[in-house]
Amino acid sequence: MTTALTTTDPRTGAQADTGIAPTSDAAVDAIAERAGKAFDQLLERDRRWRAELLDALADALEDHRDELVVTAEAETGLTRARLNGELTRSAFQFRLFGEAVLEGGFLEAAVDHAGDTPMGPQPDVRRMLVPIGPVGVFGSSNFPFAFSVAGGDTASALAAGNPVIVKAHSAHPLTSKASFAALREGCDRVAAPDGTIGIVYGQRAGSRLVGHPKLAAVGFTGSLAAAESLRAIIGKRERPIPFYGELQSVNPLIVSAAALAARSEQIAAGLAASVTGSAGQLCTKPGIAFVPAGDQADAFVAQLLAEMETTVPAVLLNARVLESFRTAEHDLESAAGVESLLGSSRSLDPAASGFLVSPRVLRVSAQDFAPEHAAEAFGPLVLVVEYPSTAELATALGVVPDSLTVTLHMEDADQREFSPLLPQVAGAAGRIVFNGFPTGVRVSWAQHHGGPWPATNSFHTSVGVTAIRRFLRPLAWQNAPEALLPEELRNGYTGIPRRVDGRLEVSASPIDAG
Amino acid sequence: MTTALTTTDPRTGAQADTGIAPTSDAAVDAIAERAGKAFDQLLERDRRWRAELLDALADALEDHRDELVVTAEAETGLTRARLNGELTRSAFQFRLFGEAVLEGGFLEAAVDHAGDTPMGPQPDVRRMLVPIGPVGVFGSSNFPFAFSVAGGDTASALAAGNPVIVKAHSAHPLTSKASFAALREGCDRVAAPDGTIGIVYGQRAGSRLVGHPKLAAVGFTGSLAAAESLRAIIGKRERPIPFYGELQSVNPLIVSAAALAARSEQIAAGLAASVTGSAGQLCTKPGIAFVPAGDQADAFVAQLLAEMETTVPAVLLNARVLESFRTAEHDLESAAGVESLLGSSRSLDPAASGFLVSPRVLRVSAQDFAPEHAAEAFGPLVLVVEYPSTAELATALGVVPDSLTVTLHMEDADQREFSPLLPQVAGAAGRIVFNGFPTGVRVSWAQHHGGPWPATNSFHTSVGVTAIRRFLRPLAWQNAPEALLPEELRNGYTGIPRRVDGRLEVSASPIDAG
Repeated sequence: MTTALTTTDPRTGAQADTGIAPTSDAAVDAIAERAGKAFDQLLERDRRWRAELLDALADALEDHRDELVVTAEAETGLTRARLNGELTRSAFQFRLFGEAVLEGGFLEAAVDHAGDTPMGPQPDVRRMLVPIGPVGVFGSSNFPFAFSVAGGDTASALAAGNPVIVKAHSAHPLTSKASFAALREGCDRVAAPDGTIGIVYGQRAGSRLVGHPKLAAVGFTGSLAAAESLRAIIGKRERPIPFYGELQSVNPLIVSAAALAARSEQIAAGLAASVTGSAGQLCTKPGIAFVPAGDQADAFVAQLLAEMETTVPAVLLNARVLESFRTAEHDLESAAGVESLLGSSRSLDPAASGFLVSPRVLRVSAQDFAPEHAAEAFGPLVLVVEYPSTAELATALGVVPDSLTVTLHMEDADQREFSPLLPQVAGAAGRIVFNGFPTGVRVSWAQHHGGPWPATNSFHTSVGVTAIRRFLRPLAWQNAPEALLPEELRNGYTGIPRRVDGRLEVSASPIDAG
Repeated sequence: MTTALTTTDPRTGAQADTGIAPTSDAAVDAIAERAGKAFDQLLERDRRWRAELLDALADALEDHRDELVVTAEAETGLTRARLNGELTRSAFQFRLFGEAVLEGGFLEAAVDHAGDTPMGPQPDVRRMLVPIGPVGVFGSSNFPFAFSVAGGDTASALAAGNPVIVKAHSAHPLTSKASFAALREGCDRVAAPDGTIGIVYGQRAGSRLVGHPKLAAVGFTGSLAAAESLRAIIGKRERPIPFYGELQSVNPLIVSAAALAARSEQIAAGLAASVTGSAGQLCTKPGIAFVPAGDQADAFVAQLLAEMETTVPAVLLNARVLESFRTAEHDLESAAGVESLLGSSRSLDPAASGFLVSPRVLRVSAQDFAPEHAAEAFGPLVLVVEYPSTAELATALGVVPDSLTVTLHMEDADQREFSPLLPQVAGAAGRIVFNGFPTGVRVSWAQHHGGPWPATNSFHTSVGVTAIRRFLRPLAWQNAPEALLPEELRNGYTGIPRRVDGRLEVSASPIDAG
């Protein structure tokens, strides 16, 4: 006998039964097998159809906007404004991948004609990326749409031509269920094969999915600990598969002396907004701010406190996030040399206020800054580290774990002084933000959302068009009869960019222009 | 006290001391640290310099051609003709990667300008691939040049901008040492940073290298068992790194009834050459040939035997390869339903003939064909499987492990009958060869040398220009001041292909044309 999954309203702490049963082993297997069959059928659909599928998924999401937003609000405590924006982003993401599918550059098509070479006569060889098979998607707690059932992993895996099986997040099962129903509707509108998308519920089902022979890759957004347990399952598979994890990130932000002199108030206001937006529960939230020590630092901290005090208190996503935050803030404020400037780790009464927390600002000198201060605190917390010199800043930065982002605030005046830090910064992050804030990840062609371990484990992004590369593998055809080649590799095909005999040729007529 | 490494002449079985000591733990650490420092320095060199480095390595290899070929001949038993060709290929490979570095498409540069989007105003984001750090290269026994110290993994990792540390193969330490000395000379000619290339000797040193914190990736060509032991070391690292393994491959070859009717003798001759070239010790050697059952099959087999009988007997690379081959041929000929048609597993006298083996042809019906018949036999052996119908062919193919290649011989007349097999074939291989033979892997832009597990574990090729992608990671710059961007991402740079606001723009003036 299995118990139905529960859902909790973070605004009140009230728990309710969802009526959703955890997916049984047999059901997981059936879903995986169905995805395997769908994969074969999807191989027969062309790119134009795939773009239609992605558009239909975007439309279906938007058709169910109100219901989805209300459901997610009750399960995450995020505001309607934020959730509406996130749903818009999810729909935009599906459509952007649709455009990329039509454009076709992602196929990395290449044709080397037969002929004489410095290595003698050589055969005709043509290469293109092809889909890999069913992809398992483990969404996050903090983005119930854009990094969950209807998120970027799902969109990019489908765009690549793969079926997707999502594992519903335990903190928002009803949102997952409703999102899945909307996507299913989108699939039906374009007559997608049965099994194009599937969903499983419960931790056991998720583990079984990752171990299933039909699964070809896993996209994951969540904690390092959960990632390690899934990686252990992959380690025991007969056939290893890639695990693309977006795990944790501290996102250091560095302010130069000249930037502080020129824009102290502005930076304080921006930082406060970036730290407290979505209650600080963003993977790119700046968790540590390095500022030059001295009088200006004191003024900056005062400005930051004033800004943080005016933010509206917010609830955290769930009991687990709350517990982690309590531990992180407690560890930090009891560490040697760390001074608490705003807020407290004393628990509020969850019965009265749900998972409400107060925003936190703490301070430490670069000399006292140590690895134990540099853990991710997922929530509205920022640690200000005051550095006496660029050399000591570099040393302190070396203590921070590699992150999704590093942010630099500097002026032309001290650009030269800070330039030597750039290789270190570049080696420790996936994105370098200049004179801005790392939250608010643009979904676009040039985006990269992925950093060195432990930020992510991959050489790939989970946001932006190139996320599609994670779910494709190359295939080569040697001396293939024209009729047996994919149309994109046939002679004279001009609908996509191709590399022909080493020379990149840009598409003359993308198929969406036809 | 450590014993010096030995080398064995496969033509005689005679063992000799090399005078090379296994690399100590302390020395491995020092080499890795030096590579880490070289990495920082390499980041400051531009692409033009990197192309010069690759050309200099090619030149240096060719300058030492005679010495290298003679050394490799005595350690591998491969013919001088073959070794000369392989050295030419290695040099060609370095130069081709040099061309790719100048062309710059591998950087995947993308620029999204700031502006209004359907998601509101968005910042300027620019993306490019950047090198990852020191790469460990474990070469193969069967390609002492092209897949070893001076091979494709080394060339592609250096082309990407990374230092390389090679682990000398135990079967050809002197060739490894001489190759390394030549590459070192090439490095010196262009004043490469100390530590740009390094070498370690001995199994313990290889393991220590893979576990070293400075290492950023491993390229490996060899057995599944050796790969698993290195993967286990990676599994214990604090920071996981990618392992790109090229492991084993059966390379099924399928002949249709019409092809057999039209070209039986020609296919038999080509197959015999492909099976026995380099004594069958090629990762793409066709190990299983599927032919339609019946009288034509008997004629084909007779032709194949006649061709195989005329091949010059050859020695295997080393005692381990010999032992594996003996086991494989013995297991196969003693399996139920398998008939031995040519050669024998009885050992010749190694004292007299070194690691000499006779070419083998065996036969089994599709009905009797079982998984235990489908293991890789690394050496001059082919198993002919006779299939009564396309349906039974499909079933039998399902038993063959996924491979680097699948080869199809068919005619226009039965193309339609065979087309339904294509999705299955495509799912089980990295390259589909039509009416040819899989050995002789073209080094070019469109090549793909990599198959699903257990052929390789990666989504990447180890041959051809795109092999460079394995040793790069994306990095994004948000709102970066022009002066702090890499030159390839600055406004107006036209030296490489770039994707600007989603549109691919082809380089107007590659830097080699300047």
